[in-house]
Amino acid sequence: MIPNLQIDARRLWDSLMETAGIGGTPRGGIARLTLTDADRQVRDWLKQECERLGCTVTVDEVGNMFAVRPGRRSDLPPIAIGSHLDTQPTGGKFDGILGVLGGLEILKTLHDAGYETNAPLMLVNWTNEEGSRFAPAMLGSGVYAGVFDRAYADSREDRQGVTFGEALEAIGYRGSAKAGSIRFGAMFELHIEQGPILEQEEKVVGIVEGVQGMRWYEISVTGREAHTGSTPMPMRRDALVGAARLIDRIEAIALEHGPSAVGSVGLIEVQPNSRNVVPGHVFFTVDFRHPEDAVLDAMERKLLAAIDEMTRKAHLEPELKKVWESPAVRFDADCLASVQKSAEAAGYPARRMISGAGHDAAYIARVAPTAMIFVPCAGGLSHNEEESTSLEECAAGTQVLLGAVLDYDGRGTERPS
Amino acid sequence: MIPNLQIDARRLWDSLMETAGIGGTPRGGIARLTLTDADRQVRDWLKQECERLGCTVTVDEVGNMFAVRPGRRSDLPPIAIGSHLDTQPTGGKFDGILGVLGGLEILKTLHDAGYETNAPLMLVNWTNEEGSRFAPAMLGSGVYAGVFDRAYADSREDRQGVTFGEALEAIGYRGSAKAGSIRFGAMFELHIEQGPILEQEEKVVGIVEGVQGMRWYEISVTGREAHTGSTPMPMRRDALVGAARLIDRIEAIALEHGPSAVGSVGLIEVQPNSRNVVPGHVFFTVDFRHPEDAVLDAMERKLLAAIDEMTRKAHLEPELKKVWESPAVRFDADCLASVQKSAEAAGYPARRMISGAGHDAAYIARVAPTAMIFVPCAGGLSHNEEESTSLEECAAGTQVLLGAVLDYDGRGTERPS
Repeated sequence: MIPNLQIDARRLWDSLMETAGIGGTPRGGIARLTLTDADRQVRDWLKQECERLGCTVTVDEVGNMFAVRPGRRSDLPPIAIGSHLDTQPTGGKFDGILGVLGGLEILKTLHDAGYETNAPLMLVNWTNEEGSRFAPAMLGSGVYAGVFDRAYADSREDRQGVTFGEALEAIGYRGSAKAGSIRFGAMFELHIEQGPILEQEEKVVGIVEGVQGMRWYEISVTGREAHTGSTPMPMRRDALVGAARLIDRIEAIALEHGPSAVGSVGLIEVQPNSRNVVPGHVFFTVDFRHPEDAVLDAMERKLLAAIDEMTRKAHLEPELKKVWESPAVRFDADCLASVQKSAEAAGYPARRMISGAGHDAAYIARVAPTAMIFVPCAGGLSHNEEESTSLEECAAGTQVLLGAVLDYDGRGTERPS
Repeated sequence: MIPNLQIDARRLWDSLMETAGIGGTPRGGIARLTLTDADRQVRDWLKQECERLGCTVTVDEVGNMFAVRPGRRSDLPPIAIGSHLDTQPTGGKFDGILGVLGGLEILKTLHDAGYETNAPLMLVNWTNEEGSRFAPAMLGSGVYAGVFDRAYADSREDRQGVTFGEALEAIGYRGSAKAGSIRFGAMFELHIEQGPILEQEEKVVGIVEGVQGMRWYEISVTGREAHTGSTPMPMRRDALVGAARLIDRIEAIALEHGPSAVGSVGLIEVQPNSRNVVPGHVFFTVDFRHPEDAVLDAMERKLLAAIDEMTRKAHLEPELKKVWESPAVRFDADCLASVQKSAEAAGYPARRMISGAGHDAAYIARVAPTAMIFVPCAGGLSHNEEESTSLEECAAGTQVLLGAVLDYDGRGTERPS
């Protein structure tokens, strides 16, 4: 039986709209790249809000933030609620942010009701989930889970050559706690779906059983710079023409493994990038995802074959680097049971599903029982300034999150401490 | 009979190597984009050198520089020697620069010999020939020839939004003379071939009869930004995939009109250019060239058809702008006769040819008798830091240029003043 507490939908919405002003864009989105000054501002805001509720805020060595609300029993490990406050260069107002501010709304609801949980609750803001400024994505939760070490994280560079470590210190969020030393017993992450399924099926809640596998690659193609006017076509080694063929082929590889496979080239840089110079060098990124790792292996083999073919035909020198690999993830059965029970208690139409996007929960699942809750976003549109989830949908997800945490906390008392 | 004067090959080479240090790159090239501080430095250097020889230097309203050496008869219009000192972002040491420093070497040779021409001689440095920072190319000579007006030139923007007019004033090279008001009777331009023909045929001098027609386009492709992980392939409107297909097709269109046609995409910009966002917007440039305008019309029709097809298939919104068009050019018979006579007198193996690249001479030919002289460059490689022409080849071209100017000056006396 889940305690009957109701979150404040309007208060949650107001906090989403207030923080949307930090890094807000003219087109209604948010440009709050990780470890920028806008990121610092929203971190300062979150710290202040949590402390106002009597929580203690700790920061670890890679900038992950942990706000703890004490429970009745200090011998139980905290139950965590976590997501991220960083965004894409042209991001929306809900991706990641809903999971953190939903957690904050839960802390406020419990505070107002004077409700005491058995285990302490812990609100977490993970650093650099997006991976847009510093690849790879989910870097803060990855270091926490031991997927990457701190030195690796510190050495990541943005396209201007600034390192993660330099940027972290520049905004004053290098904490003293060792990553992974701030423990919790389980984590729940609320997030927008970033896909079209819930909306198409008119469901309000997604009970997320796992995350598909993902691989990121970087490809460099080197040809030869030459004059566009006086270099006959057969004498050219045009790196951009070679890259264009690969980009076309990468889409085809994803389609060949449909409907679940996706393949994308999101970033490309051309040297010297001048109208009348045949491009001598092209750098671009590849993002492959599928729920089965075996299918990703097959897609990778096809990518290698496509590169070989392009090279032979156009006399170009390619270089392929796999910069990130995240295997398919299954979430914890107990945590999922609490989410299921909470969704039923709240009476929202729900369905079980697999996440198409990567999330901090995918790494945390390696070190603690974890589950996720999805709510719809209009048209499945995300990583876009027009990303849109309604007040009611944000409230529904947060209410289910509250119920899941309280249900899990209730079971917790039966567990040996 | 051409007066027997010899240029100083070593002095010419030393001036090429000295100025190569202004904007010089670690890989041995030059990065001296028009109207940057490096461009200002080399302009200051040229002005000083010319004044040391007793020349008067005037600058017009778009920054074109004119250094005049008086002749015996002030009633004759000057004979001009002109090219450009600006370079590509990763340019070589000879493209344009040889034509200006070759002219400077001629002024020094005449000065040392105390030789007095009939007509005044005029050395010209044209502004923004490359068109790399500010499109279109050959902007300074274009305004001089009345192809563009000053307001158009001033309003050109670089990719950072700085205008040509702002940059010109920032380096202090906005002159008071109206463009086109500083007249001359003919112009000779010495340039490296930037193509493979002379080298392949073991010729030292190219007598350039004309320039092929050129057209520059800008294409914008708009799709929709979306999450790379959770947006199914059929739901995407990927602007980069659409652009990639066009880039592939543009190469094919040029090959279909071979061997003389060339087609290139040199510059591309992707929004938001993030690894895990499906690109919502792509901007890129197209450069088509052929000696016959009718063939360029056919290539343009195929480009339009390719854009239509891409749009229908991928549900993208394209925008095509023709930003520049330069018809095929034929040079002046008298000027060419002087070049031919000079090449024969100097005894260099020469051939008549058409220029594949655009040059200031192509616009000047609309308002004054004009011709060009080519010398080889290794591998036909240009717009590249490895661009290479030997001391002997630079000297040969400059010697032929001197002879052509003196021969034309000799005929000049027979012309009514």
